[in-house]
Amino acid sequence: MNEINNYVETHKQRFLDELFELIRIPSISSQPEHKPDMYRAAELWKDILLKAGADKAEVYETEGNPVTYGEKIIDPNAPTVLVYAHMDVMPVDPIELWNTNPFEPVVKDGRIWARGADDDKGQGFMHAKAFEYLVHSGKLECNVKFLIEGEEEVGSPNLPAFCKKYKEMLQSDVILVSDTSMIASDTPSITTGLRGLAYWQVEVTGPNADLHSGLFGGAVANPINVLSKMIAQTMDENGKILIPGFYDDIIEVSQEERKLMAKAPFSLDKFKSEIGIAEEFGEAGYSTNERTGIRPTFDVCGIWGGYTGEGAKTVLPSKAYAKISTRLVPGQDHDKVGKMFVEYFNSIAPETVKVKVEYLHGGPSYVCPIDFAGYKAAEKAYTEVYGKQPIPVRSGGSIPIIATFEEILGTKSVLMGFGLSTDAIHSPNENYPLEQFYNGIKTIPLFYKYFVEEVKK
Amino acid sequence: MNEINNYVETHKQRFLDELFELIRIPSISSQPEHKPDMYRAAELWKDILLKAGADKAEVYETEGNPVTYGEKIIDPNAPTVLVYAHMDVMPVDPIELWNTNPFEPVVKDGRIWARGADDDKGQGFMHAKAFEYLVHSGKLECNVKFLIEGEEEVGSPNLPAFCKKYKEMLQSDVILVSDTSMIASDTPSITTGLRGLAYWQVEVTGPNADLHSGLFGGAVANPINVLSKMIAQTMDENGKILIPGFYDDIIEVSQEERKLMAKAPFSLDKFKSEIGIAEEFGEAGYSTNERTGIRPTFDVCGIWGGYTGEGAKTVLPSKAYAKISTRLVPGQDHDKVGKMFVEYFNSIAPETVKVKVEYLHGGPSYVCPIDFAGYKAAEKAYTEVYGKQPIPVRSGGSIPIIATFEEILGTKSVLMGFGLSTDAIHSPNENYPLEQFYNGIKTIPLFYKYFVEEVKK
Repeated sequence: MNEINNYVETHKQRFLDELFELIRIPSISSQPEHKPDMYRAAELWKDILLKAGADKAEVYETEGNPVTYGEKIIDPNAPTVLVYAHMDVMPVDPIELWNTNPFEPVVKDGRIWARGADDDKGQGFMHAKAFEYLVHSGKLECNVKFLIEGEEEVGSPNLPAFCKKYKEMLQSDVILVSDTSMIASDTPSITTGLRGLAYWQVEVTGPNADLHSGLFGGAVANPINVLSKMIAQTMDENGKILIPGFYDDIIEVSQEERKLMAKAPFSLDKFKSEIGIAEEFGEAGYSTNERTGIRPTFDVCGIWGGYTGEGAKTVLPSKAYAKISTRLVPGQDHDKVGKMFVEYFNSIAPETVKVKVEYLHGGPSYVCPIDFAGYKAAEKAYTEVYGKQPIPVRSGGSIPIIATFEEILGTKSVLMGFGLSTDAIHSPNENYPLEQFYNGIKTIPLFYKYFVEEVKK
Repeated sequence: MNEINNYVETHKQRFLDELFELIRIPSISSQPEHKPDMYRAAELWKDILLKAGADKAEVYETEGNPVTYGEKIIDPNAPTVLVYAHMDVMPVDPIELWNTNPFEPVVKDGRIWARGADDDKGQGFMHAKAFEYLVHSGKLECNVKFLIEGEEEVGSPNLPAFCKKYKEMLQSDVILVSDTSMIASDTPSITTGLRGLAYWQVEVTGPNADLHSGLFGGAVANPINVLSKMIAQTMDENGKILIPGFYDDIIEVSQEERKLMAKAPFSLDKFKSEIGIAEEFGEAGYSTNERTGIRPTFDVCGIWGGYTGEGAKTVLPSKAYAKISTRLVPGQDHDKVGKMFVEYFNSIAPETVKVKVEYLHGGPSYVCPIDFAGYKAAEKAYTEVYGKQPIPVRSGGSIPIIATFEEILGTKSVLMGFGLSTDAIHSPNENYPLEQFYNGIKTIPLFYKYFVEEVKK
């Protein structure tokens, strides 16, 4: 531990400078105008890996954004760790709520403030520096591969094909990912489950043009009123989702496991006050942690239509739109649910409007058993750095590709996250505590050490 | 009739030239940069009135755009007609859809093409020329007053104060307005009712910032889901508005009058195909014309919240907004309904969110009884020029100032419109048929004649 501590202490400013270079590239994967930035980010990641000690690194073309792959093979018979991270970030809207330029990182109050500071440039970059340390100190006892993709925030549409094509190259004994959070800076935890995802866009068309709401109002279905009603018909007042068959395939979590999960520290008052709500809302019969961890959701992520400017303009609009997502839990197939919702929304659409429901993308859920070698190695590494055994938790988020890795590559992932709930990922003023950044760089080499030990057992 | 026909025939080119001078002034009241044009239009109207034979005409300042007032008093004991029109026009966006310059009038296919050709420069100007004829021919048997305002298209915010201040000056026995349309060029009609209006903006706040829909989804009420549900709770599947007390004060239209109204030519197939809908929707138990004419509405004019950009961004948004309006019918008080909705929306708001409902503005509805002297005079005038008795119709639109006139000045208005549904008012390529323009000039003097007769009865 002393050696890595000294290494981080010596190089901490350089680590930040290098990370900031990566953050400054506005690699927003959902906005086509940032396509050139995706290539800049991929090339920079190639340089990062080569400088850190990779034998080789390449930028690979896909049908969408590029992928950077790099590796260092010390012995074909040694265990292999595949590090997965993503170079793309979320959009920055609403930009006016940021206190600083999202693509000009600033250190303040012990945190890095920028889009991608945590998700996933900050967390991904820790792996490059941990790897650099291992190579530099001669302590690397396993093969290391890096897979850095550019479409995680849009559901990794092209990574499955990439994994199939380069299945051999990507073979490993464990996939190591830092793209999640831990309970608190003094309470380490490891995410053992991820929810799946399905995402749709809905377009409701009433009349073929915006109409005068006085001359036509009352005689023509208003697409916003209709869309609102359809959304309302998808969840009841107990938080139950009303899509037929939606819950059928869920693998229910046992009462025993629910008891274990309930041991994670949690204060409902703190939860409510931190996000400024008076009352929580969710599926009846489940706790807040269960609602986000082991139960599916139905959220409208965005809605728009008609007049949205200043003041009062009367109009009976032609169109209304919504972006809708659901988080899925083990057992639920995302494509099956994807179709289910399209069918349901079409079935409840009245004859008075035209409804177009597009299934944009989806991804499966994931579970990591706590007796897996990778889990045990991570547990030991955290315990050594944080002085506490990490708690296994089910996260409500989705990293669809994790389940896909298991499916295509046959490899389990370990989600060694260092983010905190205060990092505001996907929101204005995303940030990442320096302490977590440096602790991550210190924890990761221990994972390698214990993973080799576990595999050799 | 022969004399007026000859007068129009002799002067038709001059009438057009004079009207075009007025149209060429881009008097767009909603755009502050056109404020000087409002003054140019007001001064031109003053000249128009003086040239036509007014004893005096003045431009009056208001808190907003100027008002032009002119009069000819032949005998303080004679009946008095107050002509109301507006000199302001709507914006011209989207300008690229116009076939000609909106402020350079062109005559083509028997129509004048320009912004304001109908609404309300063309229709307003007919009154100046009808007045000119009456003065010129020595046939004016009543006093005439002209009130030309410059803020009709932005809701006449300063005209109520003007009416209060100059109440004495504006006294009359009838207010004559040409700012509406008739069923068709061979089917004259008179608008006998206008709907009122109430308009609100709603803000629903869930968490104090946009949240990660995976980490929080399922445990926190989503403000878009909540707003959708609240909107859905405001109208049932039969088109009945569910705000308690909403219908209580409505003065129901008699079965007899509904039968009369039903005589207006109407094709549901044509109505549906013109606006591109497969099925109409409205309050059960009423026809399409009744739904737009004699029944109130509840329309969401705009809605927005969350992520509305390209692609799929998952977010549990902090806020959702809607702009909501209702059209009101006789009996319903707009301010009472304004409060009713605020109370209702607050009452159905769950504890899980904060709801702010703002009543932005409202205006009363209006009815002109068909036994009113002004209505009878208009009926006779149309019958003489068009060879058919005009049909009384209730329009779904709102001209709030008409109800305000009744309230402040105590005078009923007669809506003698000569527009057609094809005139594209408020849209690109606004136009006004020459035939309607000249027929208007011929019909108005007959109104004066019959109104004096009716009053003397």
